[in-house]
Amino acid sequence: MLLEWGVLVAVAMATVLVPGAAGQYSPDWESLDSRPLPAWFDEAKLGVFVHWGVFAVPGFGSEWFWWHWQGAKDPRYVDFMRKNYPPGFSYPDFAPDFRAQFFDPDQWAEIFRASGAKYVVLTSKHHEGFTNWPSAHSWNWNSVDCGPHRDIVGELGAAVRKRSMHYGLYHSLFEWFNPLYLADKKSGFRTQGYVFHKVLPELYDLVNRYKPDLIWSDGDWEAKDTYWNSTGFLAWLYNRSPVKDTVVTNDRWGDGCSCKHGGYYNCEDKYTPGQLPKHKWEKCTSVDTNSWGNRRNMRLDELLRLPDIIDDLTRTVALGGNYLLNVGPTVDGTIPPVFEERLRGLGDWLHVNGEAIYASRPWRVQMENSSVPLWFTSKGQQVYAILLAWPSDYTVEISTPLTLPQTNVTLLGYPAPLKWSALQPSGLVVTLPVTSLAGGHGWTLRLDGVA
Amino acid sequence: MLLEWGVLVAVAMATVLVPGAAGQYSPDWESLDSRPLPAWFDEAKLGVFVHWGVFAVPGFGSEWFWWHWQGAKDPRYVDFMRKNYPPGFSYPDFAPDFRAQFFDPDQWAEIFRASGAKYVVLTSKHHEGFTNWPSAHSWNWNSVDCGPHRDIVGELGAAVRKRSMHYGLYHSLFEWFNPLYLADKKSGFRTQGYVFHKVLPELYDLVNRYKPDLIWSDGDWEAKDTYWNSTGFLAWLYNRSPVKDTVVTNDRWGDGCSCKHGGYYNCEDKYTPGQLPKHKWEKCTSVDTNSWGNRRNMRLDELLRLPDIIDDLTRTVALGGNYLLNVGPTVDGTIPPVFEERLRGLGDWLHVNGEAIYASRPWRVQMENSSVPLWFTSKGQQVYAILLAWPSDYTVEISTPLTLPQTNVTLLGYPAPLKWSALQPSGLVVTLPVTSLAGGHGWTLRLDGVA
Amino acid sequence: MLLEWGVLVAVAMATVLVPGAAGQYSPDWESLDSRPLPAWFDEAKLGVFVHWGVFAVPGFGSEWFWWHWQGAKDPRYVDFMRKNYPPGFSYPDFAPDFRAQFFDPDQWAEIFRASGAKYVVLTSKHHEGFTNWPSAHSWNWNSVDCGPHRDIVGELGAAVRKRSMHYGLYHSLFEWFNPLYLADKKSGFRTQGYVFHKVLPELYDLVNRYKPDLIWSDGDWEAKDTYWNSTGFLAWLYNRSPVKDTVVTNDRWGDGCSCKHGGYYNCEDKYTPGQLPKHKWEKCTSVDTNSWGNRRNMRLDELLRLPDIIDDLTRTVALGGNYLLNVGPTVDGTIPPVFEERLRGLGDWLHVNGEAIYASRPWRVQMENSSVPLWFTSKGQQVYAILLAWPSDYTVEISTPLTLPQTNVTLLGYPAPLKWSALQPSGLVVTLPVTSLAGGHGWTLRLDGVA
Amino acid sequence: MLLEWGVLVAVAMATVLVPGAAGQYSPDWESLDSRPLPAWFDEAKLGVFVHWGVFAVPGFGSEWFWWHWQGAKDPRYVDFMRKNYPPGFSYPDFAPDFRAQFFDPDQWAEIFRASGAKYVVLTSKHHEGFTNWPSAHSWNWNSVDCGPHRDIVGELGAAVRKRSMHYGLYHSLFEWFNPLYLADKKSGFRTQGYVFHKVLPELYDLVNRYKPDLIWSDGDWEAKDTYWNSTGFLAWLYNRSPVKDTVVTNDRWGDGCSCKHGGYYNCEDKYTPGQLPKHKWEKCTSVDTNSWGNRRNMRLDELLRLPDIIDDLTRTVALGGNYLLNVGPTVDGTIPPVFEERLRGLGDWLHVNGEAIYASRPWRVQMENSSVPLWFTSKGQQVYAILLAWPSDYTVEISTPLTLPQTNVTLLGYPAPLKWSALQPSGLVVTLPVTSLAGGHGWTLRLDGVA
Repeated sequence: MLLEWGVLVAVAMATVLVPGAAGQYSPDWESLDSRPLPAWFDEAKLGVFVHWGVFAVPGFGSEWFWWHWQGAKDPRYVDFMRKNYPPGFSYPDFAPDFRAQFFDPDQWAEIFRASGAKYVVLTSKHHEGFTNWPSAHSWNWNSVDCGPHRDIVGELGAAVRKRSMHYGLYHSLFEWFNPLYLADKKSGFRTQGYVFHKVLPELYDLVNRYKPDLIWSDGDWEAKDTYWNSTGFLAWLYNRSPVKDTVVTNDRWGDGCSCKHGGYYNCEDKYTPGQLPKHKWEKCTSVDTNSWGNRRNMRLDELLRLPDIIDDLTRTVALGGNYLLNVGPTVDGTIPPVFEERLRGLGDWLHVNGEAIYASRPWRVQMENSSVPLWFTSKGQQVYAILLAWPSDYTVEISTPLTLPQTNVTLLGYPAPLKWSALQPSGLVVTLPVTSLAGGHGWTLRLDGVA
Repeated sequence: MLLEWGVLVAVAMATVLVPGAAGQYSPDWESLDSRPLPAWFDEAKLGVFVHWGVFAVPGFGSEWFWWHWQGAKDPRYVDFMRKNYPPGFSYPDFAPDFRAQFFDPDQWAEIFRASGAKYVVLTSKHHEGFTNWPSAHSWNWNSVDCGPHRDIVGELGAAVRKRSMHYGLYHSLFEWFNPLYLADKKSGFRTQGYVFHKVLPELYDLVNRYKPDLIWSDGDWEAKDTYWNSTGFLAWLYNRSPVKDTVVTNDRWGDGCSCKHGGYYNCEDKYTPGQLPKHKWEKCTSVDTNSWGNRRNMRLDELLRLPDIIDDLTRTVALGGNYLLNVGPTVDGTIPPVFEERLRGLGDWLHVNGEAIYASRPWRVQMENSSVPLWFTSKGQQVYAILLAWPSDYTVEISTPLTLPQTNVTLLGYPAPLKWSALQPSGLVVTLPVTSLAGGHGWTLRLDGVA
Repeated sequence: MLLEWGVLVAVAMATVLVPGAAGQYSPDWESLDSRPLPAWFDEAKLGVFVHWGVFAVPGFGSEWFWWHWQGAKDPRYVDFMRKNYPPGFSYPDFAPDFRAQFFDPDQWAEIFRASGAKYVVLTSKHHEGFTNWPSAHSWNWNSVDCGPHRDIVGELGAAVRKRSMHYGLYHSLFEWFNPLYLADKKSGFRTQGYVFHKVLPELYDLVNRYKPDLIWSDGDWEAKDTYWNSTGFLAWLYNRSPVKDTVVTNDRWGDGCSCKHGGYYNCEDKYTPGQLPKHKWEKCTSVDTNSWGNRRNMRLDELLRLPDIIDDLTRTVALGGNYLLNVGPTVDGTIPPVFEERLRGLGDWLHVNGEAIYASRPWRVQMENSSVPLWFTSKGQQVYAILLAWPSDYTVEISTPLTLPQTNVTLLGYPAPLKWSALQPSGLVVTLPVTSLAGGHGWTLRLDGVA
Repeated sequence: MLLEWGVLVAVAMATVLVPGAAGQYSPDWESLDSRPLPAWFDEAKLGVFVHWGVFAVPGFGSEWFWWHWQGAKDPRYVDFMRKNYPPGFSYPDFAPDFRAQFFDPDQWAEIFRASGAKYVVLTSKHHEGFTNWPSAHSWNWNSVDCGPHRDIVGELGAAVRKRSMHYGLYHSLFEWFNPLYLADKKSGFRTQGYVFHKVLPELYDLVNRYKPDLIWSDGDWEAKDTYWNSTGFLAWLYNRSPVKDTVVTNDRWGDGCSCKHGGYYNCEDKYTPGQLPKHKWEKCTSVDTNSWGNRRNMRLDELLRLPDIIDDLTRTVALGGNYLLNVGPTVDGTIPPVFEERLRGLGDWLHVNGEAIYASRPWRVQMENSSVPLWFTSKGQQVYAILLAWPSDYTVEISTPLTLPQTNVTLLGYPAPLKWSALQPSGLVVTLPVTSLAGGHGWTLRLDGVA
């Protein structure tokens, strides 16, 4: 019965969505991939990623807690539950403890803005299926009916936009334990009950209700895009949705899409290419190297240090990517101070060096390591060389640029021009000043009048 | 978008269900109402009704707790929450406390059997929408994902059937706060998203999975049967379902159906007709006169006493009805002893008087009150007069029966025949024996050889 | 250090208490046992016993839950905890769940009064050590600091006295797991730190604060009365306390005291003597035959039926005892309706038969069983024969009384005198009337003018 | 009654303790104050302070939560409770949620050791009265009976000592809401029931059981030392206790003692003297400037930054003090990473500069500010000048020291000697090297051969 049902509804949906998709883009990859990426995204360079959900309640291991515990039956998770909860305790039983008493979206947004980020991406729904907005298709398994009793997606969005940042929504296509999904999976994805009862209604609702600037799709890999009806949804998104002109998407729209179809490419988590990619991409990574969601017992040595983050951002931007840095708020609704410190530290660095980052373009060469490792970016006629180490002799050799007599070299944050001398056949040697800037990390030389 | 969707899916469903309904009965009331009621139901006479759900957690007021609190905003409920729970606490937050630690379906079934009941009807889902079975369409809002972590519908069914009782499932069509239902309601029930995403999938699932002998439909009254697709479902149920030959249903299939269409009639809760109805009916009532669900603070004087129950059963059966007596188990999974006492007391009475009840038929006259109130039933050639008071002079006059010389009068539970004398133009006077039976309540005179 | 300490404090206390005890009674058993029992107690005959404490939270097994679980390590209790609570959960962790939301002392007192009881005895502190009043010596382990946040001892006392019943307080001398007690025990009770830091301050506080009419001492058996300083306390209680003229005590004041010293005798729980004792006694028993505290999963067949209770009360009073019938309220603060039913049923019986009970005295013979079992009581010139069975031939033979011509026999609750005839050399045969009273249980024949 | 009691017990105790005190020190301040401070303390310089208790459960405001809420009735705390907890919720109800699931004393001790601290002071009991060890005098209000179910004092002590650090115990004399204390207070501290039932037994128990190297007394100020029996306890501690030769105490032993009697002086929280004190002292301060206990919602700008801490430590040591830096662990048993970062950062600084800190002595002059603020310490013949700012011209003038030709100046952490020139009549000018050290904070010049 259910099988017949799913097929039928799928047919019905296809019918209704084809007209819905009418417009510039047709629901196929060739057409969809031809859409130019809205310009704001490449200019933004830095975003903050936020993973929040019921997984913050156990706050142990990672945001994949449920799967590790009851899917993979990882002994660390099984033991954690056995030691701390009564037998029979289930994951949904965590929901009332997702209290978020201190959740202040303006405070969050203020911290995110202070990091220098130009966009924020929130998990509207992770693989656990709990929606951070009052989804009619996730009754009693969402943040308004349960736990926080707040429209997290809506509240954070308002606070983020009030500060002129773009707002993106992470959305997991699959849900590990949704019985409708499991039924489809069991059928070899020949049925689509889950897609039509849950995924698509929620995606349309998210877009219509919150008008996100970015949809960060995830959880696609177990099924083809045809199961997810991805091209149909994207055609609607690009042709008729309220965000059709501004919305950006990534590449996780079904098995085989990653690094190949969609908007910009994430390829895989924490992916960094070896050389300049042809397609706009984004590196997502997390301050807590072990988890995207909050872990109550994280240790300092498991976290990225600020210099690591500056290096990583620099490399990413030099290679044409955006950098999406993740923090996991606590179950109480706070950003742990150590994360706040990283974010504000990054903002301090960008306050000096942001000129080399925001709206920059990759240069003809991305990096060199003549005396210290350095990465290039460019903007119009300027070339920026970002040094990831301070040379002990205060002298840095840069081999790639071709100088002219009128070439001017400055250190961002330092008032006076620097002394330099040309090298042959190309390059220059710059003398760095004695300055307390040396005690920091990551320094930008702006080269005016080079080629 | 959602509106178009609902319409379309409705069309689709109609298409798929019409063939599904092919068979003896067509999906219209004329045809469906023509189906004879399976014989077991009228013979059974007595059932036990069980209301259990998340409402047992607050255990206050009634099983309508959620509605009274957040729908009607009844001050008693609002105050109860304000005094006992933190601000913002929601109804779904109760679910983890629905622990049911002591739930032993065999113990329940044994008590129900001891009451003399021949069928048991459990709330598979009440208006709160929480399903007492692992419904794929009620993920994380059912008794296996949350709280008890048990398939209550399945476990109780097995225990009931092991004791040769019939098993019925109460099912509420509407759910007070289901957002899909609320959306349909807002549309004036022109959309049917709720019916096709929730109600019908669950009804089919219930029937296919648990093969109930009875579907006790409820919660229908806000919309027409056409909204609920009731005739389509019933046609499938009667033509093709695994219980097509044995299943009994009631009359709550949409606004206007009650007392008019369906299987037997409930008309309204606790309804008792003034005279013999033409259609098979059932009176449902509750030992706790204030509530169907458990109230932690019920008082003795709010409960039916055993004599009340015997009187009520007697009247109901004399008038051709079945009697469905409700108990509300506690959040811990126990039947409160005072309910157990009522049920066992009724069973003791039926042990003596059941001959006048089970498989009986209404007699040509239903009651009289010449000396004490008494009600008639019949079975083949026997007429039974059930006395609801013991005459202080140990003499009872019965006016209706026409006696014959060979008429024999016995008191059920008393070994010897009774003395009687005929009255003119009809009737007889019976002399009751001196017996400790007098100290009980409800006595049956069997009249053999009367007309 | 602790040992020296205890000894010293004991010396100090002895010093202070000897003068405190100055008065009619000296602190030795010969003197204390010579005190006449205040008259109200013997006249009262019936009391209600109430066991309430943290043990109502698990509500499993009995009020000895803590001991069975962590003292005796009874597998049923260990398993219960393992199945329902996280590892490491401790008994004190139960306290916040002792919510008592519905606790209404007036409602309780009204039920107790309706039972016909003339006194109520509440557990002010059971062996768990949790005090049901705000004891300064049991900080954060009492009903005002934790859980109910109510002065249960005070509130129930006011309600009981408003209804003209006497108010008694159960008090356990020992506390299973109190570390001060365990230290004394380890010393072979040569130290008394626990007695002087905990027991005596609390006993004085209880008496001064609540002025109980009865102190129902318990938990004495592991140590001698000299350890408990019992005679010192009782001398103060009888000589100088605010209740010196009215207070009644029982016999549990140290190993060897039971059935031998103190006020009236309990001897042991549920003790019934084989013949008329020389000393006033009291039988305590519980409607739930398995437990004194509430069990959430009690079953009907584990409870005393009303006829059992009437029989037991009758026997007890005929033998000169008082009857103290226990109920265990729920964690929510309610008296389970099945207990309410027993209590009100007993009240109904006493409404008719109380004349033979209250303020009665044992007769020269206590019972006989010529035709049915019957027990005698007397009051002034009246002799009462309480029948525990109704003779099937409505004729009862009573062998012991010596009748006179003017002897009058009446059945309590029946308006007319009964027919009787004398037997030789003594006794009489009484013809019982045809009456619906026969259907009840426990009938009193009042014999006027017999010897 | 209670009053007489307290007086008597006090007399008794005095009696028993006077002999207990026999030895080198008599129980009066003149004698006790004459005891030399054990040498380890002054050499240690840096300690870590740990505030942990039930206050970590609300984790809001400060460790004075209970007082602010129910003592002072501060609206912020009252509102916090009203918004997040049900009416009637009490402070003891928090105890079961003090779970400490991740408490790993070795992990803590490893972090503390990495900070360069030589001692650790834990709150064995704060003003809430909850003992972090299984005190027999705080039954069911301690960390073994409730919540963590761990002997925190014992476990942390073992881990600290395993790493060769000294172990101190903070102990609050008063308890805000202990009814025994409140009774004494009400009497104008003429009774001492609380002292003899609670304070002294626990202090003796702490010392005998855990053998602390330091007793950090607090909560003394509402009553005189005579109420607390402080001199009696200290005489025992110095004469006969197992730690009589090594234990250090502070100065909080009764109203009027602070900065005047006892071991070293704390004077007041976060106290820093204006000039070199004559008596050994300690500054206690907290990374979280708002609280000593954990606050779940602390913000980065409320925390001390690492340079603040280095400056503060430097000043304190130059002025002859010890520095006790506090962190508040979470309710889960973790040290928040931002605290770990501060502690490890301080350890990194001490790894380079510790030579100027540990076992140093104040120099003849404590500070000067000729070109940058700098503080002096000394050790044997070396003088250390710790610079709190790096001069922008890499030249620092130091006015106080008298140089000799063989005077040698080095920068700790820099391999080569520095160039310097003498000033008249005293002082020198030092040229700082070009080094990445400049980017840090807090630099030590070691001056060999100056006067």
